[in-house]
Formats: sequence, structure tokens, C-alpha cells
Amino acid sequence: MKLAKLAESTSATIERGSPDLDITSTAGLDIAGEGDITFLANPKYIHQIKETKASAIYLNAGIEIGRDDIAVLRVKDSYLSYTRAMRLFFPDPEIEPFIHPTAVIHPSADVARYVEIHANVVVGANCTIAAGVRIMPNTTLYNDVSVGENSVIDSGVSIRAHCEVGRNCVIQNNATIGSDGFGYARDENGRWLKIPQTGRVVLEDDVEIGANSAIDCASVGETRIRRGTKIDNLVQIGHSCSVDEDALICAQTGLAGSSHIGKRVILAGQVGIAGHLKVGDDAVVTAQAAAAQDVPEGKMIGGPGLDNLVWIRVVSVFKRLSDVVKTVRSLERRVSEIEKRQD
Amino acid sequence: MKLAKLAESTSATIERGSPDLDITSTAGLDIAGEGDITFLANPKYIHQIKETKASAIYLNAGIEIGRDDIAVLRVKDSYLSYTRAMRLFFPDPEIEPFIHPTAVIHPSADVARYVEIHANVVVGANCTIAAGVRIMPNTTLYNDVSVGENSVIDSGVSIRAHCEVGRNCVIQNNATIGSDGFGYARDENGRWLKIPQTGRVVLEDDVEIGANSAIDCASVGETRIRRGTKIDNLVQIGHSCSVDEDALICAQTGLAGSSHIGKRVILAGQVGIAGHLKVGDDAVVTAQAAAAQDVPEGKMIGGPGLDNLVWIRVVSVFKRLSDVVKTVRSLERRVSEIEKRQD
Amino acid sequence: MKLAKLAESTSATIERGSPDLDITSTAGLDIAGEGDITFLANPKYIHQIKETKASAIYLNAGIEIGRDDIAVLRVKDSYLSYTRAMRLFFPDPEIEPFIHPTAVIHPSADVARYVEIHANVVVGANCTIAAGVRIMPNTTLYNDVSVGENSVIDSGVSIRAHCEVGRNCVIQNNATIGSDGFGYARDENGRWLKIPQTGRVVLEDDVEIGANSAIDCASVGETRIRRGTKIDNLVQIGHSCSVDEDALICAQTGLAGSSHIGKRVILAGQVGIAGHLKVGDDAVVTAQAAAAQDVPEGKMIGGPGLDNLVWIRVVSVFKRLSDVVKTVRSLERRVSEIEKRQD
Repeated sequence: MKLAKLAESTSATIERGSPDLDITSTAGLDIAGEGDITFLANPKYIHQIKETKASAIYLNAGIEIGRDDIAVLRVKDSYLSYTRAMRLFFPDPEIEPFIHPTAVIHPSADVARYVEIHANVVVGANCTIAAGVRIMPNTTLYNDVSVGENSVIDSGVSIRAHCEVGRNCVIQNNATIGSDGFGYARDENGRWLKIPQTGRVVLEDDVEIGANSAIDCASVGETRIRRGTKIDNLVQIGHSCSVDEDALICAQTGLAGSSHIGKRVILAGQVGIAGHLKVGDDAVVTAQAAAAQDVPEGKMIGGPGLDNLVWIRVVSVFKRLSDVVKTVRSLERRVSEIEKRQD
Repeated sequence: MKLAKLAESTSATIERGSPDLDITSTAGLDIAGEGDITFLANPKYIHQIKETKASAIYLNAGIEIGRDDIAVLRVKDSYLSYTRAMRLFFPDPEIEPFIHPTAVIHPSADVARYVEIHANVVVGANCTIAAGVRIMPNTTLYNDVSVGENSVIDSGVSIRAHCEVGRNCVIQNNATIGSDGFGYARDENGRWLKIPQTGRVVLEDDVEIGANSAIDCASVGETRIRRGTKIDNLVQIGHSCSVDEDALICAQTGLAGSSHIGKRVILAGQVGIAGHLKVGDDAVVTAQAAAAQDVPEGKMIGGPGLDNLVWIRVVSVFKRLSDVVKTVRSLERRVSEIEKRQD
Repeated sequence: MKLAKLAESTSATIERGSPDLDITSTAGLDIAGEGDITFLANPKYIHQIKETKASAIYLNAGIEIGRDDIAVLRVKDSYLSYTRAMRLFFPDPEIEPFIHPTAVIHPSADVARYVEIHANVVVGANCTIAAGVRIMPNTTLYNDVSVGENSVIDSGVSIRAHCEVGRNCVIQNNATIGSDGFGYARDENGRWLKIPQTGRVVLEDDVEIGANSAIDCASVGETRIRRGTKIDNLVQIGHSCSVDEDALICAQTGLAGSSHIGKRVILAGQVGIAGHLKVGDDAVVTAQAAAAQDVPEGKMIGGPGLDNLVWIRVVSVFKRLSDVVKTVRSLERRVSEIEKRQD
């Protein structure tokens, strides 16, 4: 790709270098070679500039690299522009439409012509599969599932009855969408009586679900993951939760039932969110932290539901804590001694 | 269903309303409409009584609602009776007996006639599948597995050799039953030598296993989950554990090997139980807590193995902890000063 | 097996008993019967010696059992020798070479003759399957996957394109190898733009991966798990991580992206390792602990990234923490009182 074309496609201005320069791939500063475009986002890597063999680089405003043998594309956000370049050089593979003869598709299913349905996929009654969808081997769709345009469902996935997957979604391997929620009432003999889980899961457009994650259907109504939210591997979303647009939920995080996660919220890895909570828009819950109460908009939480700065201070105090306790004991003795003398 | 019939089936007494009233479904107070029966269990929702459009309601003794246009079914436990009503209106679907032609069933397997075995299910040698069992697509049973009456096994499940599933069990999607436990001995060169895992898993009657959970076989003998215990998604049960009757194990909890969980124990989400422990009957371990020592009967644990009330107090102190440390330092100086003056 | 043969195969010296004694199996002290060989490693079980019905026992140097009716095999490490005996009595089942007719194997795949490929397995284009490999039902290999000699892949596994599995590996049920890493750039509108994940996963020889674990491919290059490392169930390995030789990673532990775990490191259950870290050789991270910074070689970490002894002291202080805070308050008052009197 010519530099001029690349600049145009990634909202960049050519500051140095020939518009006709051929760019053939993308690579990080340290491993880039001739023909590669690279980027510098984090100033801590600026020392790699001297050594890089890249042919071109994305730079934010104000950053100078002190070399004039590398073409410079000036941009607002070099990481974002570089990501766009990567997407140009490593596009998703095109659909090569086919339905494998071993796929078991119920005659009542409505399957577009331009789809890939791989070996041993099972598609239940009344399912709808839109154009551009790819379903990898050994995946199961129960009855009445719909999958929107250009979504990719990897191998080993289960999507249960009545669930809905939007457009441009990705559901990775062995994920479960629409499992029964964990709801039981205790009977007179202390035994657990299962509460019917009659709802479903809706994934809106541009949602991604990581490998081996489980999204429970609602007990009644919908568990809904809204447009653009990305969910990592091994995440648990309990029944009747909702996650609003553009949230990021990292690996091994769990949401108990009926919690509501706001727009652009970030839940880091191994976070726990109790049931029936509201996490406000733009809140952040740091790794391994827990929220047992509502989290206000924009708030950052750390540890056992604390303000993150408080938690950081608490951890820094831990190292001295047993010394502090000893000091308190010794102070008690000294003060008692002083009081005795005063009396 | 007539109100009289419903009352009879849910151990309720009609206190107000016609026995001939038609009840057509169940719904929560806020969304119920004409024909629905609802319930009030948590007093915090009593304000919804004024607005509800439900035709009937389950109420515990002593609760009055100040409306006479709603039929009242008086019960001991409104949540339990409502659950029973839900189960009447939303029963599990009947078995429609068939074995899909793509299912691969070993000729030595003993499969009852009244079963559903869906597409691409694989059933190994000498398996026994009892009447009323439903096995969804792409599920694998290794050799010598037995599944008891009326159990449901969802798609993508793996059940390994010699494991036993009782009656009325549910195993949700992509769960693994009988994986090898994590046991190695270190050899002379510091390498890990696998210890053969020769045991199996037994799930007794009425056990439920959530999606993407893994239950390891015993190293020798049995990992046993006793009658009525319910296990949520993404749970890890290590080799040779036992979980006694009617326990509840929430999502993402993990049991290391050889631990024994008592009757009616509740392990909340993301709990960790170390190996070779005993958690006594009716104990509760709260979310994200850990037990590294035995937990006495009936005890409630929070945080790093503490009494839950202690843990709650500890967390409440955290907010002031760095101030307290500063205060202690300042006290040290002040007391030294006083001591100096006294000398 | 004759005792003499067993001694020879497990690096033991017969100290007492006939070399011709027939040993037929292995069993723990408490359940061993006639013909069994057992072991004593942990002195806390020495009281079981009196009751055991075992015919022979492995003992470390210096341990005496006070019974002369049991054959004694003297060894350096009784646990290790016993493990070797178990492996002799419970060997992995031999391959019975076949390719099930329902397996879907791309014609371009290179599959050795001496393999077991079970029902509904799907093997993509250009895959290489070496001799001695067993692939259980409903497992999927995407294109360009290679599996080395004598590796076992259980049912329900997904291995994605270009990944490489070494020799003598075990990948347990429903594990995912090569899922896309969790990488997104934020665009001008606050939406997440997926960063292409172009790398792969390499599992070297003798690696084991537990059930329902997920190993992400590298964003660029390789996520590499080196020889002899064992990974338990429900573990998350983020993109571009590397785990060096002979490490042990217990259940439900998670590694964020680009972290490097040293040789022989032990990560206990539910541990969290942040991104871009280095955990030094022989380090240990205890259960539920977190590392947000590099861990030095040989270090043991507990709780929120603390030295493990510090963490143990911190937890022991917790029980008295709210009392300590009260004491500090009372000391403040008492010291102020003293100061007032002095003035």
C-alpha cells in the first residue's frame, strides 16, 4: 500500500516521506523491518527509535524522533491509527460461502446464502442466520436463535433457545450464551427448588464474548449486553444483568444476578460484582476488587469496595501494620506509666 | 388454571377471591398484568402493591395489602409458593423421544427407549442412559458413563469414563465432569511426574452443574456431589472432594483437592477453599473469601478466612487506616516529649 | 509384579521382604489390602502404620515402622517412588489406531497412521497429527495446527489456526488454545476497535492444560508454554505471555497479557498476575494473591502483592484491628489530658 493511501485510510498527514513509498505491513518498533509502518505511543519506548528499521511511523503531535530516514505520519492518536493500519494489513478473512454436509440444520431455520457453516454445526428449529456469518465446527444453536450479519461464532460454542446475537459480534470458543441462571427457592425440608429461568440473552451489535465465558439467560425477560461491549475469557454474567454500551469486562470477572453495568465501565480481571447493583457510567473496578454496593459514575474502586486511592494507601500501610500494633501496645504501657506518676 | 386448583397445588389458602378465577401465568409485582399471580416476599417492594395489575398474590401470614380487587392466597412462604406456581406454568418441556441419526452410540451402550439424544452426541461403550434423559448436541460421554432418569445434559458437555450422573440432574453447557485432577510428584530433576488419576465423579440425584464448570475425578475412589447440591457456572471442584447434600456453590468458586463441604453449606461467588479441609454443615463463606483452615459448623466466613463480622469491621477500619498510622506516629512523639519533660 | 522388579523400576532397595513377593496394585495406607504397596511420606500419618494391611511400603531413609510383617522398600523420596509404582500399575491406555468415519479430516492434513481420532473430530487444512496421538470426540482443530507424538486431546477442545502442540502433551476437555487476545484501541467516539491478533500459541513437550482453560494467542508472535509446565482447570493465559519450564499454575488463576513466568514458578489457585510483569524463577504466589509488580526470583508472595510472611502477619493482626483503632483513640485523649495538665 502506498503511504498516501495508508495516510488517507488512517486519518494521518504525511509530514515526511514520499507518498509513493510502499508500506507492506505493520510491526512494533523493536521488530519492524523495511516496508513496515510502526508507532510510538508510550514515551518510555522512545529509545527504540534509534534502532528501529521501520520505513514509516505514526507520531502524535509534538513528538520528534531525530531521524530523517523514516517517513512520518502525523496523527492525533498514534495507537489508534496504528490499530487501523493493522486492520488494513490483517483484515478478517473473507467468507467463502458453504454449508458443510455434516452440519445439521433444521429445515425450519432461515439461513442466508452467503454464510460459512462448518462441520458438525447444529442449528435448531426456527433459527435465523444472516449473511456474512461464520459458524465454526462443533457449535450448537438451540431453537429460535438469531445471529446478525457478519458475526463470527467459533467452535464449541453453545447458544441456547431464543437468544439473539447482533451484527458484527464475535463469540469465542466454548462460550455459553443463555445458560439457566442460578435461582432456587428453599423448600420446607431445606431442599433447593429450581426457579424456572424463562428469559433469554440479547447481544447487541459489535459485542465480543471471550472463550469459555458464560452468560446466563434472564430469569424473566432479558440479560442484555449492549452495543460495543467487549467481554474477555472465563467471565460469568449472572441472570438478568445488563451491561451498557462500550464497556470492557476483563477475564475471570463475575457478575451476580440483576446487576447493571454502565456505559464505558471497565471491570478489570477477577473482579466480583454482587447482585442487584448499579455500576455507574465510566466507573472503573480494578483487578480482584469487589463491589458489594452501587458504584457512582466515574468512580474508581479497589480492594473490598473501597475508593481505589484509599485501597492503595491501605496496602502500603500493611507492611508496617504489625509494627504499628506493637507500637500501640508499647504506647499504652508508657502512657499508663506516665498517668501513674502524675497521680 | 383455576385459583382453587393453583391454591391446592401450592399449599395455599384462598383468603380472598373466587376459586373459579382464571390464572394464566406468573409475574413480578411490577410487570404483572391481568390473569397473573404475583407475590410479595421482601417488604421493601410493598409500595409496588398499589400499582400492580396482578389478579392474585401470594402473601405470608400477617401481611395486609390494603386492596380488595386482588385475590389473596395466604401461604407460609410466598417466595416458595410463587416458585411452585412458576414451575406449574413453565414446566420443563416433555421428552419427544428420538435418537438423531448423526448421534454416535456405541453398540454396547444401554439406552432406554424414552430419551432424546440430539445431533452429534457421542456415547461410549457400556454407557447406560435411563428413561427420560435428554442429551443436547455435540456432547460426549466417554465409556462406562451412566445417566439416571430424567436428567438433562446440555450441549458441549464432556463426561469422562466411569462417571455416574444420578436422576433429575442438570449439567449445563460445556461443563466437564471427570477431568484428571491436578496431581504431580517432583522428580530428581525438578520435573513434574503425573500421578495417575484413577477415580471418578459421582453426581447423586437432583444435582445441577453450571456452564463451563469442571469437576475433577478423584485420584483414587470418588469425587462425590451429594443429593440436591447446586453448582453454578465456572466452578472448579478439585480431585477427591466431596460436597454433601443441599449445598449451594456460586459462580467461579474453587475447591482444591480432598476438601469436604458439609450439608447446606453456601459458598458465594469467587470463593477459594484450600485442600484437605472440612467445611461444617450450614457454614457460609461469603463472596471472594478464602478458607485455608477448617470451617466450623454454622460459621460465616469473610475475607481471608476471618469471622465475617470481624472482616466487616476490618474493612470499615480500612478507610481510616493511614490516618490511624499517622496518629500513632504523632502519639509516639508526644509521649516521648512528655517522658523527657518528666525525667 | 515381583517385589524385586518393582524395586528396580522405582529406584528402591529391598530392606525387608522376599524379592518374589507379588505386588498387584498401589493404595494409600488406610485403604491398602493384601498385595498392595503403599507409602509413608507425611509423618502425620504414621499412626496408620499399625492398622495398614498393605504388603509392602516405600519408606524414606531413617523412618522405622515397628512392624516386620510388611516388606520395606527403602527410597530417597517415598512419594516419588510411589508415584512411579502407580504409573506402572495404572499405565495410560495404549492407542488402538482408528479414525472414526464421522471425523472430518481435511484432505490436506498430514495424519500419522498410528493415531486414535474419535467421532465428530474436525481437523482443518494442513494440520499435522503425529503418531501416538489420541483426539477424543467433538474436538476441533482449525487450519495449520500441529500435534506432536503421543499427545492426548480430550473431547470438546478447540485449537485455533497455526497453534502448535508438542509431544506428550495433555489438553483436557473444553479447553481453548489460541483464542483471540483481549486487545482494543479506543476510537474518537469512545468505541473499542479490535486490534488484530495475528499470533499463535505454542505448547512445548510435556505440557498439560486443564479443562475449560483458555490460552490466548499472541497479538503478534507467540504465547509460549515451555516444556513440562502444568496448567490446571479454568486458567486464563492472556496474549503474548510466556511460561517457562516446569511451572505449575493452579485452577482459576489468570495472567493478563505479556507477562513472563519463570522456571518452576508455582502460582496457586485464583491468583492474578497483571500485564507486562516478570515473575522470577522459583517464585511462589499463594492462593488468591495478586502480583501487580515484578516478583523477584525465589520470592513468595501473599495477599495484595506482599511478601507472604508480611501478609500472614497482616491477617493475624486483622482480628484485633478495630480494637487497636479504639485504643489509639483512647490514647489520643489520654495524652491530650496529660499534656493539658503539664502546661
